[in-house]
Amino acid sequence: MQKILIISTGGTFNKIYDPIAGDLIVEETSRAVREIASKWLSRFELISIIGKDSLAMTNQDRLELLSVVTQTEHEKIIIIHGTDTMHVTAEYLAEVEIEKKIILTGAMVPYSIDPVEATANLTSALGYMQLLSENGVYITMNGLFSSYDKILKDRSKGRFIRKK
Amino acid sequence: MQKILIISTGGTFNKIYDPIAGDLIVEETSRAVREIASKWLSRFELISIIGKDSLAMTNQDRLELLSVVTQTEHEKIIIIHGTDTMHVTAEYLAEVEIEKKIILTGAMVPYSIDPVEATANLTSALGYMQLLSENGVYITMNGLFSSYDKILKDRSKGRFIRKK
Amino acid sequence: MQKILIISTGGTFNKIYDPIAGDLIVEETSRAVREIASKWLSRFELISIIGKDSLAMTNQDRLELLSVVTQTEHEKIIIIHGTDTMHVTAEYLAEVEIEKKIILTGAMVPYSIDPVEATANLTSALGYMQLLSENGVYITMNGLFSSYDKILKDRSKGRFIRKK
Amino acid sequence: MQKILIISTGGTFNKIYDPIAGDLIVEETSRAVREIASKWLSRFELISIIGKDSLAMTNQDRLELLSVVTQTEHEKIIIIHGTDTMHVTAEYLAEVEIEKKIILTGAMVPYSIDPVEATANLTSALGYMQLLSENGVYITMNGLFSSYDKILKDRSKGRFIRKK
Repeated sequence: MQKILIISTGGTFNKIYDPIAGDLIVEETSRAVREIASKWLSRFELISIIGKDSLAMTNQDRLELLSVVTQTEHEKIIIIHGTDTMHVTAEYLAEVEIEKKIILTGAMVPYSIDPVEATANLTSALGYMQLLSENGVYITMNGLFSSYDKILKDRSKGRFIRKK
Repeated sequence: MQKILIISTGGTFNKIYDPIAGDLIVEETSRAVREIASKWLSRFELISIIGKDSLAMTNQDRLELLSVVTQTEHEKIIIIHGTDTMHVTAEYLAEVEIEKKIILTGAMVPYSIDPVEATANLTSALGYMQLLSENGVYITMNGLFSSYDKILKDRSKGRFIRKK
Repeated sequence: MQKILIISTGGTFNKIYDPIAGDLIVEETSRAVREIASKWLSRFELISIIGKDSLAMTNQDRLELLSVVTQTEHEKIIIIHGTDTMHVTAEYLAEVEIEKKIILTGAMVPYSIDPVEATANLTSALGYMQLLSENGVYITMNGLFSSYDKILKDRSKGRFIRKK
Repeated sequence: MQKILIISTGGTFNKIYDPIAGDLIVEETSRAVREIASKWLSRFELISIIGKDSLAMTNQDRLELLSVVTQTEHEKIIIIHGTDTMHVTAEYLAEVEIEKKIILTGAMVPYSIDPVEATANLTSALGYMQLLSENGVYITMNGLFSSYDKILKDRSKGRFIRKK
């Protein structure tokens, strides 16, 4: 079975509370991902880049992500991403037609505030990836698993839904 | 896509602390599963039966489980089970050669004490099940996904490993 | 023994994460205080007013607080308050020279993100109040118990310290 | 103000889940107390002895506790103790008529399972101790503060109540 690479780019998934600032900040070293691996008694290959909120992500950041995706030998890649522009990055990667299996996921609630949803999104993506045979760009969020262009964030409900 | 049925039979996954007894007891209504569904903003079809610790499970209990598995219309079934006799129940179900896809999972740490491992086991099984095409009995624990007879619990390490 | 009244005015203590807004907001009904009471198997008399972040608190808000403090029959009052202007409100109340025992407390980390510090601040204030015999305005934070004018927030350290 | 010594003797307060044993065990180094200190941004003087469940505590253990209580220079001592025999140890210490202020506290729910009640019991005792002027043996649990002989555990309710 091929090894899976997790690329963490920041997003709500990785936010933690900073008592000095009195606000949430992106924790750039993906402590959340490493804690899930440790508690799940599992091991992840992990690269942490960009470290930004979804809305702050620029095309320069997407280029950096694309560069990591194409240069790694891994063919199975899970990208942890902020939810607001997940579809933008997914489309950006899909247009390049990389011969890899790429799943984007993230969280509506920071792992550090409540770990359940973030853990479920990441590990369900890991389960889905095991048997994924077709190259392409996918999104898995809130129990939905699909090609990236069939799922979108419903901002008013604060969750992802199937496109109609 | 076919709907997945979760059958919760008890086990460490569902244990909660009872302050009156001063001990852990099996919570029989699978509150843990329902809380994961709620926090994941997802929905599960769930049946709770038996409600026992793995070591207390009898052949009568396994017969009850088999009966639910065969009588439901669902072809994709995830069974939450105690870890100590998960392989016994898996073998019991495998011998019947049911034309369904069955994944057993559970937890080394109760969801109510730390939700991460239990959530990861269940939701990774849900992700894995999405693309599972071959009938059979499987176990997914601690990031391992496999036919039931290739994984076993290493009691000294408190985790599941691949058989050698 | 006299009953203690808790007046919750908002602040970091009461902040929760709003997944739709993607930000922390003040939970105005003091769910945190009620959850502490429930888990502590205790009961609190509680009034929730203002519901604001410390920095947003106006003199109009302080007047409202003063009005509640003076009008209640309770002589022992704990006020949950944002930490940034806790000393301003404390001084405001002290100048009126109310013949009551008033303790201000709060939290550097929201109860909903990590309950330990918020719980410790509130319940240590409740313990301190039991034997407090001298009228006046006090602050208790991070294990310090003192007249309000001898303790202040050290913003760079994110905690309260004794004045030198 | 006099420094307070915390003597941790084990009990439910300090129990943690052991995934290998599949059961709760007493964590003997009082990690819970140190974590409360760290999150409260406070510091405790702490001695960990005995490390037993309340029901397993022998007269030999009580003698050890008494020895630590009498030999330390501290006059203000909080003892973390299992709840089932807290009154036995309290009475044992009271009979010696030590010229110190001693508060016994503990928890109905392990700190590691839900930190709120354990934190509240310990830190409310710390608040109460600040102004305690009369030597004697006290119990504080679930928001009650009193001489040890006026409070007792109601086992059917799983909480402490005032004696009638």
